[in-house]
Amino acid sequence: MELSGSPGTWSGLSLRLGQFLFAAASVCVMSSAIGFANYTAFCYLIASMGLQALWSLGLACLDGYALRMKKELNSAVLVSLFVVGDWVTSILSFAASCSAGGVVVLFDKDAYFCSRDPHLPCGTFELATAFAFLSWALSATSALVMFWLLLHLD
Amino acid sequence: MELSGSPGTWSGLSLRLGQFLFAAASVCVMSSAIGFANYTAFCYLIASMGLQALWSLGLACLDGYALRMKKELNSAVLVSLFVVGDWVTSILSFAASCSAGGVVVLFDKDAYFCSRDPHLPCGTFELATAFAFLSWALSATSALVMFWLLLHLD
Repeated sequence: MELSGSPGTWSGLSLRLGQFLFAAASVCVMSSAIGFANYTAFCYLIASMGLQALWSLGLACLDGYALRMKKELNSAVLVSLFVVGDWVTSILSFAASCSAGGVVVLFDKDAYFCSRDPHLPCGTFELATAFAFLSWALSATSALVMFWLLLHLD
Repeated sequence: MELSGSPGTWSGLSLRLGQFLFAAASVCVMSSAIGFANYTAFCYLIASMGLQALWSLGLACLDGYALRMKKELNSAVLVSLFVVGDWVTSILSFAASCSAGGVVVLFDKDAYFCSRDPHLPCGTFELATAFAFLSWALSATSALVMFWLLLHLD
């Protein structure tokens, strides 16, 4: 049975590219916000999304190579490696998205920083957090698909 | 094979009681902090930890009943129900802990609210968040054990 999202397929490649694009967009948008470095949660978001982007780009290249060379990427060692990497990156991404989301909600709704200080780039923070959540959603999909593959490998 | 932490065993019962105690401690500590209701992340922490405490208490009662009546709780329907419930509560707990953690770090390290405003109960917020992380760790253990049981049920 061919599961959509498996490594070495077109659906897997597009899933990886989607993760990479959203994570890279989150890093770029957050880096463009003035004063993000004053907030630990936003620095952690950049670190975690940077890791996610590198991991997804690497696996996207591997998928592209496997598609071009018509190779299978279904060995137990490779799939186990993908499972561990995907679970670690998606848990880190989720933690980063949630903590950044908590801070953004605090700025916007609780402490009224955004309406009081017009220089604070609240919209930019929100956009970066939204991209991080999208990247996490795709990464969690990949992690589930990989785990399913590992269970049905034999 | 008897896996420690399965429903209807002493280890399962102690895991559930641990989750319940940490979640209830988190709710009590956070509710005792003056002004927590001004912060969305802390309200969400209380809601999520309340759900976790109810769920864990319910399953602890079920474990105690099964131990007393010497019943097995290994039917496929029950274990599937436990898996879904455990995964949902542990994901919600993790999200609540991370967003509260982001806000606590912001208060303490980034915005210096804690040193500027001596009336803000920062230590109490930190303690409640730490209890929430502990409750999540036990809940994640339960979720993994239940998933393992579901896979090896047949």
